[in-house]
Amino acid sequence: MNNINTDARTLQARFLHLRENKIFETFVILVIVLSALVIGAKTYPIPPTVMQVFHVLDTAITVFFLVEVLIRMVAEGSLIRFFRRGWNVFDFVIVVASLVPVEDSEVALLGRLLRIFRVLRLVSIIPELRVLLSAFVKAIPRMGYVSLLMFIIFYIYAAMGAMFFSKINPELWDNITISMLTLFRVATFEDWTDVMYETMAVYPLSWAFYLSFIFIVAFVFLNMMIGIVLETLQQEHEEFSRETGEGEAGEVHWIRDHTEAMEQRLARMERLLEEMNARR
Amino acid sequence: MNNINTDARTLQARFLHLRENKIFETFVILVIVLSALVIGAKTYPIPPTVMQVFHVLDTAITVFFLVEVLIRMVAEGSLIRFFRRGWNVFDFVIVVASLVPVEDSEVALLGRLLRIFRVLRLVSIIPELRVLLSAFVKAIPRMGYVSLLMFIIFYIYAAMGAMFFSKINPELWDNITISMLTLFRVATFEDWTDVMYETMAVYPLSWAFYLSFIFIVAFVFLNMMIGIVLETLQQEHEEFSRETGEGEAGEVHWIRDHTEAMEQRLARMERLLEEMNARR
Amino acid sequence: MNNINTDARTLQARFLHLRENKIFETFVILVIVLSALVIGAKTYPIPPTVMQVFHVLDTAITVFFLVEVLIRMVAEGSLIRFFRRGWNVFDFVIVVASLVPVEDSEVALLGRLLRIFRVLRLVSIIPELRVLLSAFVKAIPRMGYVSLLMFIIFYIYAAMGAMFFSKINPELWDNITISMLTLFRVATFEDWTDVMYETMAVYPLSWAFYLSFIFIVAFVFLNMMIGIVLETLQQEHEEFSRETGEGEAGEVHWIRDHTEAMEQRLARMERLLEEMNARR
Amino acid sequence: MNNINTDARTLQARFLHLRENKIFETFVILVIVLSALVIGAKTYPIPPTVMQVFHVLDTAITVFFLVEVLIRMVAEGSLIRFFRRGWNVFDFVIVVASLVPVEDSEVALLGRLLRIFRVLRLVSIIPELRVLLSAFVKAIPRMGYVSLLMFIIFYIYAAMGAMFFSKINPELWDNITISMLTLFRVATFEDWTDVMYETMAVYPLSWAFYLSFIFIVAFVFLNMMIGIVLETLQQEHEEFSRETGEGEAGEVHWIRDHTEAMEQRLARMERLLEEMNARR
Repeated sequence: MNNINTDARTLQARFLHLRENKIFETFVILVIVLSALVIGAKTYPIPPTVMQVFHVLDTAITVFFLVEVLIRMVAEGSLIRFFRRGWNVFDFVIVVASLVPVEDSEVALLGRLLRIFRVLRLVSIIPELRVLLSAFVKAIPRMGYVSLLMFIIFYIYAAMGAMFFSKINPELWDNITISMLTLFRVATFEDWTDVMYETMAVYPLSWAFYLSFIFIVAFVFLNMMIGIVLETLQQEHEEFSRETGEGEAGEVHWIRDHTEAMEQRLARMERLLEEMNARR
Repeated sequence: MNNINTDARTLQARFLHLRENKIFETFVILVIVLSALVIGAKTYPIPPTVMQVFHVLDTAITVFFLVEVLIRMVAEGSLIRFFRRGWNVFDFVIVVASLVPVEDSEVALLGRLLRIFRVLRLVSIIPELRVLLSAFVKAIPRMGYVSLLMFIIFYIYAAMGAMFFSKINPELWDNITISMLTLFRVATFEDWTDVMYETMAVYPLSWAFYLSFIFIVAFVFLNMMIGIVLETLQQEHEEFSRETGEGEAGEVHWIRDHTEAMEQRLARMERLLEEMNARR
Repeated sequence: MNNINTDARTLQARFLHLRENKIFETFVILVIVLSALVIGAKTYPIPPTVMQVFHVLDTAITVFFLVEVLIRMVAEGSLIRFFRRGWNVFDFVIVVASLVPVEDSEVALLGRLLRIFRVLRLVSIIPELRVLLSAFVKAIPRMGYVSLLMFIIFYIYAAMGAMFFSKINPELWDNITISMLTLFRVATFEDWTDVMYETMAVYPLSWAFYLSFIFIVAFVFLNMMIGIVLETLQQEHEEFSRETGEGEAGEVHWIRDHTEAMEQRLARMERLLEEMNARR
Repeated sequence: MNNINTDARTLQARFLHLRENKIFETFVILVIVLSALVIGAKTYPIPPTVMQVFHVLDTAITVFFLVEVLIRMVAEGSLIRFFRRGWNVFDFVIVVASLVPVEDSEVALLGRLLRIFRVLRLVSIIPELRVLLSAFVKAIPRMGYVSLLMFIIFYIYAAMGAMFFSKINPELWDNITISMLTLFRVATFEDWTDVMYETMAVYPLSWAFYLSFIFIVAFVFLNMMIGIVLETLQQEHEEFSRETGEGEAGEVHWIRDHTEAMEQRLARMERLLEEMNARR
């Protein structure tokens, strides 16, 4: 019993060693890139024999990813500790999802779709990309309320658009969902004048609808961008001052306190000198 | 008489309590979202029976909003105090405006239009959105003069455009208003080359008109953006220094003054010592 | 003789008084706005009788502007002093230019064109707009070398485009001038894929030409924008530190010097004390 | 033998003198501009006689550039030292590349293409442009990982696009390469709604594909831009503090240390005074 336990521990240590091996990591990256290339190659017309090769490759990659995740699980020692880190969950979901068979014609499309997301494993394995993605995820809540405001603006304009223009061109303004899509198109300046000229033929003043919409959306977007820049700048500044800047401010404060102490001492000394002088 | 007064006060206190109730606030938000959904749903083709339901819902929401505003009025205690806060005026106008009946076929469209603006009440009830909107309103005067400059540029170019190109394509350049709309289209890069190629067929050098316009507008816009960023940065900086930065500067100033006092004291002490030494 | 001189001086003083009168300034602004409105109104089809009114108005405005500039000349006292200020030259040129008659059919178009620029006098008379324009003019040299680099990039790509694509579509790539215009269109993303697909039919790899061009131009533009922001920030910072910041830095330097002097004095005093103590 | 060595050294000194001559540099710039004009002029239809003149000019410019590079080589004294500076390699490659003859019909196109890059020599000879280009080259690695992330996003969306939409429009979605080009088009908002409406006819929910793509790409781009601005700001700040700011911080540190020393000295002095006072 003890023997088995020792064996398990040795195995775990060996797996840990393997996981942290630089060559192993490079190999994993190469396999991910290979899987990406296979995904890309499959979008070209390929002869059946090559397809067979791809099929074997695909199975091999799937098995390899499964084994790699299992190695990391064992190396971690405990399932709870493994799943506590978000990136492990991320990898696990992608690996399990790509176990969906592609042979079965019904779920084949889903299987192929899920295999595409294996390319995302590049993000979880390269530290620099992980940092970038974390920064993006952190910025999402900041944008939350601005996005809500933007949505309200789109909703109001879309409701107005659907109310007035639905009979002019049902393809663009039939209901609130289609109207919002049309307004998004206007916000990207994509053939927005065609949309405008069409409604201006019926309502000559409808240019005010489009221009006010473009101004408001551009303005909200501009403010959002500036807000993000300012918030990020402030965070950087605070971190910077916490590390080095407070050094100077702290020293100045130290000097202030000690200057006060010195003054008191000097006052005492002067009094002493005066006494000595007077006594003589 | 006194009894009635006490009753009124009790009622007011109860309304104040209700207004500040978190559950009541959530309920108001839900009703606003519901009213927004009803507005959106009405843009789809709906069977008459469902329409009836919507009609009842609409009346219920209108009555609810009216009651809610009245509760807040009573809770505030005085009409003047109620209308002094901009957001209350905002809410009151929206609620009163949606009292316009939608049955009467003549003003039905107006009634429906005014109901759409009820979605804006989301902005007045969610504090974070209120902060965002206040920031936007504050930024408007800053942009005033830049907008005026932009308008002058558009006006001059539109006058030139109407003068030279009105015979080439009256749809785009017939008079100064249409010309300004066409120039706004050029500024958004929307099929602007079609506009240019058309006039270049008559005036081969008219590309200079469009390119100079694009450069000037882009330049003014760029400067406006930078101006806003700088002004906001400066405001942040001033607020920051008022809170913490002046601390350091103030301490340095304190040290300077006290160092001066210490020097004078030391000079006096040295003189005393020299005297004592000489006398001996 | 002396009498005339005094009269002239009185007249000058009166004109100076008039020029600095707030009501007079408002009146000048109103006349400029009126002249702008006349210019705009003329782009609409107008009956001959109204045209006559406009004609009289136009003459009146021209005369008024001439008189106003003459008043400012006299008020200034000397022609050299008047022309030394750029904004005066600006106004003088605009006023003189609009003296070109609009009756003569040959130069009528030029006369009308020059009258449009009278709207620019709004910029010279409103101080805030004057500040904005000065800031723009100051930013031009900063952009000089970046514009030169941009021009070189456009020139090289245009030369390549004219060399390879001129036979595919002479309208877009016939010579280097037209090619540069086409590339500017590509840079504004205006129907650039139509241009690309056309050449890709002959040279399937020509997408690399367009993509590299878009990336380089976007990159140079991005850097230019950041460069301007940084330079403006630095200028603001320097001005700020010159006014207040150097205060702190200067005080710290002052403290450093005086601390050194205090130390020397204290060393002298300690030596004195030790001598006194030893002698006893 | 010694004589020859002296001659060589004299020649080298003379060449060095010539290279650093301001007039010579201006002349080189003029020749580069002339070569650029010749390149541009050749894109126009020109009579054979003028073509002959251009041909002679072209040969003259090629020879001049060759001689100029040789002069700089000799002036530098050693080939290794010459090639150690990147800009020299840059110039050498451009000059050698333009030695490819344009007569031979087979490589004529290549020869003409290489001649176009001679315009780039303007960048290497004007110091301000050299600084700009260096700044651009320095910014490239910063953008590396963001570009990689962007590529992964494009790759995943392109794989999905090719999988689902290839049968709808093979011209846009046939394989992963064409799909990526189509997605780049969508990212530049160029007729992206045409692409979307086409696929929405088959998959009504495919708008989610385009909108999510646009949001993610815009978001990554926005973050990249802010990242670059912040990094550049930080670099500027560090350089600034290294030059002047650490001056203040350094002085404060100096004052702190010396205040400590003064305190110790004062403590010694007070003890001495007290002893003297007690002994009496």
